[in-house]
Amino acid sequence: MIRVSFQGERGAYSEAAAISFFDEKIESVPLLTFADVIEQTENEKTDYSILPVENSLEGSVGESYDLLYTTTLNSVGEIYHRIRHCLIGFDSINEIDTVYSHPQALGQCRKFIQEHNLKTVPTYDTAGSVKIIKEINKKNIACIASKEASEIFQVPVVKEGIEDHSNNYTRFLVLSKQKTHETKKDKTSIIFSIKHEPGALHNIIKIINDYCINLTKIESRPKKSTAWEYNFYLDFEGHEDYTNVKEMLSKIKENTIFLKIIGSYPRAELT
Amino acid sequence: MIRVSFQGERGAYSEAAAISFFDEKIESVPLLTFADVIEQTENEKTDYSILPVENSLEGSVGESYDLLYTTTLNSVGEIYHRIRHCLIGFDSINEIDTVYSHPQALGQCRKFIQEHNLKTVPTYDTAGSVKIIKEINKKNIACIASKEASEIFQVPVVKEGIEDHSNNYTRFLVLSKQKTHETKKDKTSIIFSIKHEPGALHNIIKIINDYCINLTKIESRPKKSTAWEYNFYLDFEGHEDYTNVKEMLSKIKENTIFLKIIGSYPRAELT
Repeated sequence: MIRVSFQGERGAYSEAAAISFFDEKIESVPLLTFADVIEQTENEKTDYSILPVENSLEGSVGESYDLLYTTTLNSVGEIYHRIRHCLIGFDSINEIDTVYSHPQALGQCRKFIQEHNLKTVPTYDTAGSVKIIKEINKKNIACIASKEASEIFQVPVVKEGIEDHSNNYTRFLVLSKQKTHETKKDKTSIIFSIKHEPGALHNIIKIINDYCINLTKIESRPKKSTAWEYNFYLDFEGHEDYTNVKEMLSKIKENTIFLKIIGSYPRAELT
Repeated sequence: MIRVSFQGERGAYSEAAAISFFDEKIESVPLLTFADVIEQTENEKTDYSILPVENSLEGSVGESYDLLYTTTLNSVGEIYHRIRHCLIGFDSINEIDTVYSHPQALGQCRKFIQEHNLKTVPTYDTAGSVKIIKEINKKNIACIASKEASEIFQVPVVKEGIEDHSNNYTRFLVLSKQKTHETKKDKTSIIFSIKHEPGALHNIIKIINDYCINLTKIESRPKKSTAWEYNFYLDFEGHEDYTNVKEMLSKIKENTIFLKIIGSYPRAELT
């Protein structure tokens, strides 16, 4: 069976995303940190790693981007996973006055929390808060997490879909030791660094423009080694084995201090 | 006295940054969320808001960027604040076996935690974890937070500077209802959105390049209203009142769907 490592408690959104990605049944392996997730695949204890890289409301996941910089794994797939938060607890909404969850999830359900005049208690993990309220076991204490987490810890869903914005998606990358073949609808992710001088970034964007390639993401991120020098993270349409993408990448390489291709993978559809 | 709102418990890194920024004594106002911080200044209950926007190790703070998009406040200053994590507790390091802190702080002290074979307990706030361990009051339980938090909650520092990387800085913006004047060493932050088509970003970068203006940050961030459409966040050198910056901004405006100037402010030095 395919083994897939993910960060978080069982019932985490990462686990649900992993299950949705593979056609066959998988063995999902919950781990404490993103670094552990990657390490397990690098050491061949798992076949794939699932890494959240971006959320449609919150933006990029810094820690994941840093791991993409250092890992030897390739990106072989992407997943857009719809985040539907549930109120999970032991009684009806009228009896509930306190809600536990990760600060991001609390923030994403702000309207619901205000309407029902709930006190909030921040925790470090959405699925983990189901575990916590189960241990406390009081009728007035509920939490916000996924339906999957409710099923795993066997605490009932009081209300489903309590998030303020329905367009709440997390984008995950699937990483492995393998590489993918062209599918005619691929995306490629790269990291590069350039000299800190006017025009340096323009040179790179111009090359991409000259090859008529569609940029889908750009982000400058501070380097770990030197404060406030930047690496750039780019996603664009096309596979690294396409002739014109290959040509473009070699021109980019000539104009950068450092270039790493994270991988090419079939583009996911937003469902 | 100048009133400054910040997010977190007393002793948070944001509060220390605020104190370092102003020449005179300030009244700092701790609040639960970033949204509350901004709202207090918008409603003139405080004169300034302090917002963390970027950390040299972790990258951008998504929630802050979203607030910059919606707020009516102007950015009038920036601060680079060195993050020095302390081990805070009641006994010597040999007696300590468990450490509480925010997951980011735990991650930034990974080497120290491994060397001393400590169990970790994630919390939602660094300064808040001093409060927690004070309540538990056991010799084997310590936490990671700032020296300021140790002083405020009167729990001793066991060891100072336990972070893995010394170049751990957070960049804060200072926001107010006022605007600033030119100082000849300014920076400007803008947000814009463009059509999702090849060449659209290149047009903007080319304009900046034509005016020989130095870009110091670029980031695409998903729009809240439509999943996976992007806003771009740019910082560049120069004040919006400079003639050439003014000209450049009006050309950028012609090529964007939306343009917002967050503000111009004196560049902070990295100390």
